[in-house]
Amino acid sequence: MDMEKDDFEVTPWDVEGNVDYRKLIEKFGTERLTENLKERIHENAGSKNFYINRDFVFSHRDMDKVLDDYEEGDGFFLYTGVGPSGPMHIGHIISFKMTKWFQENFDVNVYIQFPDDEKYWTRGKKYDDVERFAQDNLKDVAAVGFDPDKTFIFKNTEYIGNMYKAATKVAKNINNSVVSAVFGFGSSTNIGLNWYPALQILPTFFEEGRCLIPAGIDQDPYWRIQRDIAPKLDRKKAAQIHNKLVPALTGPDGKMSSSEPRNAIMLNDGPNEVREKVMKRAYSGGQVTKEEHRKKGADLSVDVAYQWLRNLFIDNENKIKEIGKKYGQGDMLTGEVKQILVEELNKFLGEHQKKKENKGKKIKDKMMYKGELAKKMWDKNIEL
Amino acid sequence: MDMEKDDFEVTPWDVEGNVDYRKLIEKFGTERLTENLKERIHENAGSKNFYINRDFVFSHRDMDKVLDDYEEGDGFFLYTGVGPSGPMHIGHIISFKMTKWFQENFDVNVYIQFPDDEKYWTRGKKYDDVERFAQDNLKDVAAVGFDPDKTFIFKNTEYIGNMYKAATKVAKNINNSVVSAVFGFGSSTNIGLNWYPALQILPTFFEEGRCLIPAGIDQDPYWRIQRDIAPKLDRKKAAQIHNKLVPALTGPDGKMSSSEPRNAIMLNDGPNEVREKVMKRAYSGGQVTKEEHRKKGADLSVDVAYQWLRNLFIDNENKIKEIGKKYGQGDMLTGEVKQILVEELNKFLGEHQKKKENKGKKIKDKMMYKGELAKKMWDKNIEL
Repeated sequence: MDMEKDDFEVTPWDVEGNVDYRKLIEKFGTERLTENLKERIHENAGSKNFYINRDFVFSHRDMDKVLDDYEEGDGFFLYTGVGPSGPMHIGHIISFKMTKWFQENFDVNVYIQFPDDEKYWTRGKKYDDVERFAQDNLKDVAAVGFDPDKTFIFKNTEYIGNMYKAATKVAKNINNSVVSAVFGFGSSTNIGLNWYPALQILPTFFEEGRCLIPAGIDQDPYWRIQRDIAPKLDRKKAAQIHNKLVPALTGPDGKMSSSEPRNAIMLNDGPNEVREKVMKRAYSGGQVTKEEHRKKGADLSVDVAYQWLRNLFIDNENKIKEIGKKYGQGDMLTGEVKQILVEELNKFLGEHQKKKENKGKKIKDKMMYKGELAKKMWDKNIEL
Repeated sequence: MDMEKDDFEVTPWDVEGNVDYRKLIEKFGTERLTENLKERIHENAGSKNFYINRDFVFSHRDMDKVLDDYEEGDGFFLYTGVGPSGPMHIGHIISFKMTKWFQENFDVNVYIQFPDDEKYWTRGKKYDDVERFAQDNLKDVAAVGFDPDKTFIFKNTEYIGNMYKAATKVAKNINNSVVSAVFGFGSSTNIGLNWYPALQILPTFFEEGRCLIPAGIDQDPYWRIQRDIAPKLDRKKAAQIHNKLVPALTGPDGKMSSSEPRNAIMLNDGPNEVREKVMKRAYSGGQVTKEEHRKKGADLSVDVAYQWLRNLFIDNENKIKEIGKKYGQGDMLTGEVKQILVEELNKFLGEHQKKKENKGKKIKDKMMYKGELAKKMWDKNIEL
C-alpha cells in the first residue's frame, strides 16, 4: 500500500500493522487503489473523497473500468445493502456515505438491498423482529442523504415479484458446491439461505452498465460468484471499492458488531451513552500514568479515539496532524482526545438522528415507492 | 391389495405382476385403499369413481382424515400440478380427472401449480420453450373441466410475489441434507432447483384445512418433507391418494413419457396418429400367429390395449368383462381390441381438443386471473 510511513499514518484499521491489509489484497487478489487511480476518481468527481484521501478506502476491483465507462459516457450504477439484524452502528454508515459520495459527484443511480429473507434464514429470528429492525435501519439509510429520485431501496420479500424470474437465471448458473465453497454452506444449511446468493447477485444486473459496490474488504469473496457468471449472462463483472474495517471501541482486534452494542457506537445512541462508551471503553494508546504519558506519548497506531477521528471525522489535514503530533508526544492526554471524539460523534449523531426523526419516514417512502427511480423499478420486471 | 384374482383383474399397471404395487405400499409406507374407505369416499361423494372402482387408484395417506374433516364440516382442498416440459400425454390427464372428480362431488377448491421455474432449472431449456409448453399445457388443464370459480392455476414465476414470504418459512425448516436425501440433489445441483421444494410444498398450506393431493404413487416421496414439517408450522399434513402409473404403449416396462412421444398418446395427437401408434406400437398380449392365438388366447396382464380400455376408458363392467373374456380365450384378435381402443381414444381426444381449441384460452384466463378463487388469490399474500 501507498501509505506514508510517518507516525500519523499507521492505523488500527491495519488490524495487526500495515502488513495485514497489504496481505489481504494479495490473498483476495484485489488491486491496490494507486495514487494514479485516486487522482482519476477525484478528477472525474471534481471533488476529493475523505475516505480515499485517508487510505481508509484502499482496494478495488475494476475501478479503472468504471472510470473508463464513465469517461466514455456509458455511466455506471451503485449497489449496496444492509441486513436488518439489529440497530445499525457507526461502522455500517461508511459504505453508505461512500456510496452517497459517488452518487453526488457522478450523478448515478443507487440500489440498496434489504435482504430481510436472508436475515430471517440466518439468525433464527422471527419476521416481526427482522421487520422492526428493517423499519429502523431503513430510516437510517434514508437519513444518509441519497438523491430520493435516483435511489431505490427494496426489501427482498416485497420486491421479489419483480426479481424472481431474472433471479432464476442467476441461480441456474450457480451450483451447490460453489455456494458451499464461498459461503461455507453445508448439509445443515437451510435451502432458503442456500438460494439467497442468487438474490444478492441479481441487483448487479439491474442496469446494463457496470455495477460498482462500495463495501468492506471482508465482503469481497461474496462477489466472486458474480464475476464468474456475469460473462455467461452476457453482462459486466461488478466492480468493487473496498474500505478497511471499523474496529470495535475495545480496539483493533475485532470489527464493530451490532451483537456487541456496548463496544460499538450505535446510530441511535444519545450523547450521554456516547460519552460513557468512549470514555470508559475506547481502547487507548496512551500510557498508564500521566507521568509516563507525558514522557513517552501515545501509540497512535492502536488508539481508537485518534484513529476514528483521523479516518472518520476530521477532514482538516492540519488539525488532525496537530492532534496526532501533540498526542504522540505526550502533550495531549487520552481524555482530551476522547473528548474531541465525543464531540464529533455527538455532532454527527445529533444531525443524523434529527434527519432520521424528522424526514426519515418520508424519504424512505420516496426511495422505496414514490421517487422517480422507485416508480420505474416497480413498473417493470427485471430482465436478464 | 384387494384386487380380485380372476384373469380380468391382473393389470400391466402392476409393472411386474400384482406383487409390485403391494410391495410399493410397504416400501413407501402408504396405506392400501380398503373397501371400507372406498365406500366412505363414494358415500360422501354420492357417486362412484371409475378409477377407484378399477383399483387404478389404490393407495393413500390420510384419506381417512380427509373424510373425517369433511364429515365434520371442516372441508378440505385439492392440489396438483404439471411441469411444462413438453406437450402433455394421456397419462398426465389421470390425476387431473381424479382431481376434477373430487372437486365436482365434494365442492372444494383446486390449486394447480405450473412450476415453470423448476422446469427451467431441471431441463436445460430456455424460458421461451418452457413458456410455449406452459401455454399449451394450461389450455389442456383448462379443458379438463374444473369449476372456473373454484380453481386457481398459477405459474410460479408469476405468482411468486404473493408466495415468497410464506415460502421462506417453509424453506427455513428444510435443510440441504433433506432435499439431497429425498430428491437426490448434490453438489452439481443448481441452487434454484435445490430451493424449489419450498415452493412445491407451499400450496399445501394455501388453506387452513387439509390438502389432498391426487398423484401417481411415484410422487409419494416428494411429499414426505411436507408431512415432516407441517406440525412445526402448526398446519395439517397433506393427504394423498395415489394412482398406478400409465405405462408406455410399448408395454409395462416404463411409465409414459413426453420425451418419448412415439410411445405415448399425446393430447394433441390427431385420429390418424392415434390409429398408427396404437396399431403399430401398442404392446400385445396376443399370440404371434392367428392359429396359436385362437388356441391359447391373449395374456391380458401385459396387453396395453386391453389394460388401457379397462383402467382408463370402459366404464361399463359387463362390456369390459366381455372383451376380456373373449380376448383371453382367443375369440377376439389383438387388432379388434386395438380398434376399440383407437375409437375410445379418438372420441376422448376429439372432445378434449375441441374444448381446448374453443374454450381453452377463456377458461384458462378465468382460472388464472378472473375467476372468483383466482381473484381472491391475487388479492392476498399467502400467510403462514
